[in-house]
Amino acid sequence: MTITEQQATGTDFSTARSIVLQENERLLNAVQPDQWDRAGQLLTNARAVFVIGNGRSGLAIQMAAMRLMHLGLKVHVAGEVTAPAIGSGDVLLAVSGSGTTGSVVSAADVAKKVGASVLAITTAPDSPLAQRADEVLVLAAADKQDHSASITSQYAGSLFEQSVLLASDALFQALWSKEDQTAERLWERHANIG
Amino acid sequence: MTITEQQATGTDFSTARSIVLQENERLLNAVQPDQWDRAGQLLTNARAVFVIGNGRSGLAIQMAAMRLMHLGLKVHVAGEVTAPAIGSGDVLLAVSGSGTTGSVVSAADVAKKVGASVLAITTAPDSPLAQRADEVLVLAAADKQDHSASITSQYAGSLFEQSVLLASDALFQALWSKEDQTAERLWERHANIG
Amino acid sequence: MTITEQQATGTDFSTARSIVLQENERLLNAVQPDQWDRAGQLLTNARAVFVIGNGRSGLAIQMAAMRLMHLGLKVHVAGEVTAPAIGSGDVLLAVSGSGTTGSVVSAADVAKKVGASVLAITTAPDSPLAQRADEVLVLAAADKQDHSASITSQYAGSLFEQSVLLASDALFQALWSKEDQTAERLWERHANIG
Amino acid sequence: MTITEQQATGTDFSTARSIVLQENERLLNAVQPDQWDRAGQLLTNARAVFVIGNGRSGLAIQMAAMRLMHLGLKVHVAGEVTAPAIGSGDVLLAVSGSGTTGSVVSAADVAKKVGASVLAITTAPDSPLAQRADEVLVLAAADKQDHSASITSQYAGSLFEQSVLLASDALFQALWSKEDQTAERLWERHANIG
Repeated sequence: MTITEQQATGTDFSTARSIVLQENERLLNAVQPDQWDRAGQLLTNARAVFVIGNGRSGLAIQMAAMRLMHLGLKVHVAGEVTAPAIGSGDVLLAVSGSGTTGSVVSAADVAKKVGASVLAITTAPDSPLAQRADEVLVLAAADKQDHSASITSQYAGSLFEQSVLLASDALFQALWSKEDQTAERLWERHANIG
Repeated sequence: MTITEQQATGTDFSTARSIVLQENERLLNAVQPDQWDRAGQLLTNARAVFVIGNGRSGLAIQMAAMRLMHLGLKVHVAGEVTAPAIGSGDVLLAVSGSGTTGSVVSAADVAKKVGASVLAITTAPDSPLAQRADEVLVLAAADKQDHSASITSQYAGSLFEQSVLLASDALFQALWSKEDQTAERLWERHANIG
Repeated sequence: MTITEQQATGTDFSTARSIVLQENERLLNAVQPDQWDRAGQLLTNARAVFVIGNGRSGLAIQMAAMRLMHLGLKVHVAGEVTAPAIGSGDVLLAVSGSGTTGSVVSAADVAKKVGASVLAITTAPDSPLAQRADEVLVLAAADKQDHSASITSQYAGSLFEQSVLLASDALFQALWSKEDQTAERLWERHANIG
Repeated sequence: MTITEQQATGTDFSTARSIVLQENERLLNAVQPDQWDRAGQLLTNARAVFVIGNGRSGLAIQMAAMRLMHLGLKVHVAGEVTAPAIGSGDVLLAVSGSGTTGSVVSAADVAKKVGASVLAITTAPDSPLAQRADEVLVLAAADKQDHSASITSQYAGSLFEQSVLLASDALFQALWSKEDQTAERLWERHANIG
């Protein structure tokens, strides 16, 4: 962990907004689109999709999971009450900025062992998580434990977590485009109780 | 509900990425920064902050809630096992694209009744939620039930939900700037078990 | 709401343990077994089972939901990220001590409208929830807003919530008995990641 | 893992109910009350209480956590969005039937390292979790991976998970008895939004 004396200073909302927008634009434009298009194929061909991530990364990938359910895929969130065992033919969509989060790397090990595929979203292409993945989706933000502000002026993993959502939603948009489904058809799958 | 025949067509990841980035840039640059700076003051002066939102809006505002906790605020998510009653001096940060979500509007009513302040994030400045708010933070995306693609080419509330995260994180960055706290100090508050 | 001056006094763990055991024994022995056996048939014939409940009732019924998943049923918890719309042929297992909880009664209305069956677990056989149910499973504990200690010496809905778990687990045991499935077969369905 | 050919046979709801009641009565009456009374003192003196458990054990201890919050304690659930770092003066209430659950044992290690106390609820007094605990609360049910039906006829960890709830609620009742708080005072702390 590289803890530095990073502090945000003299920043009002207007300045911060520009930082957030510019950092995401630069980051997402550096992404390899073909990796995400291949990831999309893996997801739509899966028996079921399981997503896993800790903290804010976990919340961002849950937002993606909900959209995949709206698209008609069978989706589970690791740790959810109703999530069964992952098995052969399933896909694990695993998110970790550092690629070293214990529970996420362990889940990737289980997935490989039972014959599931692993899609990794990470900043670190050589990380333990990436090494276990069938497809590595690199988002070149700083790892959240790097507080040195070299890549982002934002706190910790914020840029990574934002880009997980924006890239996942772009992937959803591309997948939706490939399906012959109107917005109305997707809408019928939205939760109607709770 | 205006359900149309909206469909995304001919969109690969690269095209979808451009749509997501451009829509968020246009939307966030139309935001009134002074509203968010005032909201920040309300939040930092609160006895405790409660956040509420349904579905993906709820997940986005939970990401914001986690950051406010890292900043040292006392924060609760509505529906969490450990969330107590909201009371006088607290602030409710309430998110609803349409401004009509039943549980969110009801929560705003309770908040007003007990002497808490209400901060609303919504697309709809004249909505029931906005009418109950002390400060209305308008994000001029389409409501998710408007499938007519007039404001966004994305599905349902996606643009709104993305902008909730990006704007909240910009607000966090501005609040962090006002505090005399290094990244290291915030980092010490991150969950270390679970 | 009948709020009284109820207080527990002079109770150590040993005394409290006896109260909990005796109250549950008396309550569960007053249950009509045939209602639960019929409920079991509805659950195993469902296209999918949705469970809903607030607070501790919700946690108790989530424990039941997990076991139904282990048994091989398709199960969703209302409010879970991956829960889709309830529809025709599904069963809603709805829990409310008072039978008046807003979100639970609303869910029962939606279920009836879309052609799903409703199983209600409640203390109140004449409540709004019970009136919407195809089968009412009465657990004759006090409603949690009755603090008068006439039926239970425990706080609020504690007895009801305990009995929801114990009765649901007895129902699971009976359902398991009807299936030709070893413990090992169920065990294979337990979550293996997260 | 001892996987056997255990199956429940010839059991209707009425029979299953008797099994559940008798097993809990026998188990809870074998508990050492003084251990739980000491645990109660640790909890009420804590700066904050953190609870952790996986699956159904986790849900049962969350039910207990909610009651401790109603009693006025500061409570966090591991993994909740708003849970901060555990620290000196806090108490970790850790539940694992086998006493070997990875995330729970790791949490106990962290707790000890930062100066927090550990309360373990487990079937296994010699387990890794018990070895890290300041107070071990033994519930002598079978571990859920012992499918041999020697102690319980129920599936997997069901008896353990039921007894976690019943014993925790008895502990709550005893703690409430020691406080000068009416039911009405506790009721005011119940969540009023969400």
